Amino acid sequence: MRDVAVIGIGQTKIDEHWDLSLKELAGNAIFAAMADAETQQVDSLYVGNMMSGSANKQQHLGSYIADWVGMRYHEGLRIEAACSSGAAAFRSAVMAVASGEVSSAIAVGVEKMTDSPISEITSDLATAADADYESDMGTSFVALNALIMQRYIFEYGWKHTDFANFSINAHANAMHNPYARFHNKITVDDFLKAHIVADPINIMDASPVGDGAAAAIIVPLEQLNNSRKKRIRVAGSAASTDAIAIHNRKDPLWLFAAEKSSKAAYNQSGFTPADIDVFELHDAFTIMATLSLEACGFAERGQGPRLALDNEITPTGRIPIATRGGLKARGHPVGATGMYQIVEVVQQLRGEAGQTQVPDARVGMTQNIGGSGSNIITHILVREP
Amino acid sequence: MRDVAVIGIGQTKIDEHWDLSLKELAGNAIFAAMADAETQQVDSLYVGNMMSGSANKQQHLGSYIADWVGMRYHEGLRIEAACSSGAAAFRSAVMAVASGEVSSAIAVGVEKMTDSPISEITSDLATAADADYESDMGTSFVALNALIMQRYIFEYGWKHTDFANFSINAHANAMHNPYARFHNKITVDDFLKAHIVADPINIMDASPVGDGAAAAIIVPLEQLNNSRKKRIRVAGSAASTDAIAIHNRKDPLWLFAAEKSSKAAYNQSGFTPADIDVFELHDAFTIMATLSLEACGFAERGQGPRLALDNEITPTGRIPIATRGGLKARGHPVGATGMYQIVEVVQQLRGEAGQTQVPDARVGMTQNIGGSGSNIITHILVREP
Repeated sequence: MRDVAVIGIGQTKIDEHWDLSLKELAGNAIFAAMADAETQQVDSLYVGNMMSGSANKQQHLGSYIADWVGMRYHEGLRIEAACSSGAAAFRSAVMAVASGEVSSAIAVGVEKMTDSPISEITSDLATAADADYESDMGTSFVALNALIMQRYIFEYGWKHTDFANFSINAHANAMHNPYARFHNKITVDDFLKAHIVADPINIMDASPVGDGAAAAIIVPLEQLNNSRKKRIRVAGSAASTDAIAIHNRKDPLWLFAAEKSSKAAYNQSGFTPADIDVFELHDAFTIMATLSLEACGFAERGQGPRLALDNEITPTGRIPIATRGGLKARGHPVGATGMYQIVEVVQQLRGEAGQTQVPDARVGMTQNIGGSGSNIITHILVREP
Repeated sequence: MRDVAVIGIGQTKIDEHWDLSLKELAGNAIFAAMADAETQQVDSLYVGNMMSGSANKQQHLGSYIADWVGMRYHEGLRIEAACSSGAAAFRSAVMAVASGEVSSAIAVGVEKMTDSPISEITSDLATAADADYESDMGTSFVALNALIMQRYIFEYGWKHTDFANFSINAHANAMHNPYARFHNKITVDDFLKAHIVADPINIMDASPVGDGAAAAIIVPLEQLNNSRKKRIRVAGSAASTDAIAIHNRKDPLWLFAAEKSSKAAYNQSGFTPADIDVFELHDAFTIMATLSLEACGFAERGQGPRLALDNEITPTGRIPIATRGGLKARGHPVGATGMYQIVEVVQQLRGEAGQTQVPDARVGMTQNIGGSGSNIITHILVREP
């Protein structure tokens, strides 16, 4: 396999985009990525999306979007892995270019959720869980995460307030990201007073849905050798599944798929957790941020909240996360989220992250989680000299 | 890229499987493929499926099926390209192994359609068309194909009866395929007397929905060098999109995406239409079989029906199609169909096609069509000495 690099990135603001269709959202991110890459010639298109078939009555997004962005007759496929669909599309694009099968590829993640009633979106989100044993029993996706968080707090003796800094950091960082859904700072008091969704998860533990799209263009690394562009190489790409139903897992408080895919990405790249300058993780809920930090080697088992309490997760901390707002405050248009993570890490590695720039960031990691931990995809990107 | 080969195939009968869940269907095909390959160790899983999110309230099939078949912690993704999702999954598996990223891969196509009311399935199928300009106007998928067939008959002066042999051949061949949905011979009279669905398409022009799964295991070709197994190499793999809405295409009577992807597969493999011994095409409707034969170089423009009238499409004809029943009589569980085509061509190239064996078949082609021609994926397989 040949080395590949990200040559262009683009994104839309995450919002309620009543005036934009699904293809316009995706197109706006793709056109921005093309402008950034200074090219309109791309070979193949990989679309990450979870729920357009139900929420927008439109599947077949490969063809639907390819034509809209001027890629008629090119390959166009949709990749779905629930909430990790975005990273799955990126991985498909990386593999296609790395294999030599295609000369360049666009990965775009897109989701348009606010057209549907929220009750339907709740049902759609539940299709990421096990229909036989979880969602058909009436368990919502928040409820599944609440069960995990209840048990975590019980096992390791934390208090709910110990998770507050995950949200406070995310909201503080989103203030400086024009593409973020929320631009409001929050305090510990706001966190504690927030409405409960499913005990102990309140709306400050939980990320918001929304409409949005983010895209990246991948080319062989050598194509950037004589360019003035910063060379952001994809140094690691790995995916792992786990049992889809939580009760079937070996341990509901340990993300085996995060451990497995991050270890594979560390091995591929030659980096260790100590080398990671910035980590865009999947803080769909504060408990997921915690578990991700532990499984990827940044905290001991049961000690994830300590990093937040010690302010080690801010842009100047030991392991900066949610530097552009994360799922919590940038927003979580589910199938698009993995691509927002890629775009944001590229911003960091290029030094384009403005007031939340991680000083001299050179190695970045993304981790996109599908379901309640059953499909986890990890990427490591590095700025080449 | 390294050469890859199909080492194992498996399939379920296409039927109304009230006693099998989605994962059991997929599992049965996968277990059969594993038995055929004499291995249970496979690296990655790629699932082709169109509508499980709505029809079965279950997305996230990569994780859902990986766990069921003993592949927990392995990569598992779903690929969707409407009715060509099966071929898209196969192409993803081929690319993953060819790239060297994974050592072996399973592609499985699965669809479980009979659990949902047929009105909902009709709506689900319409998500393969353009929601903005086609399906939202009330056009069903059959209606779109009927418009194409009306125009084709008008432009080229054929009669409806001239398409009869496409169905007659399919039903005759399915008689000898235990996995086929239908086991009844039909006559010209049956074809002409069949109920109209959307004029001129009647139920003998149209393929039936159903529940089914088909799978194939892909490994590096060299792994078969010292094996007693027949070496079925993937010699060509190509995908092309076209405008999703028919009115946006340059010519509604020409499958540009079929032309483009077949030409690319011919170029990759070094074969020409004259070399193809068997062609499992996408006869979702008789008009689509016609257009596919023309776009792939087996008939002149407007002359596809001539091949059927002259009996050149039977197993002993010039270009055998639907040799195991095709979409018309083997059945069309949409996201699974592309994988049935692969399985059937492998059967032909191995000489395992029984009474519908194409004599000494060495080179086989499959073509899976998504939407009304907007996503077309072509594969060429060859039996190595």
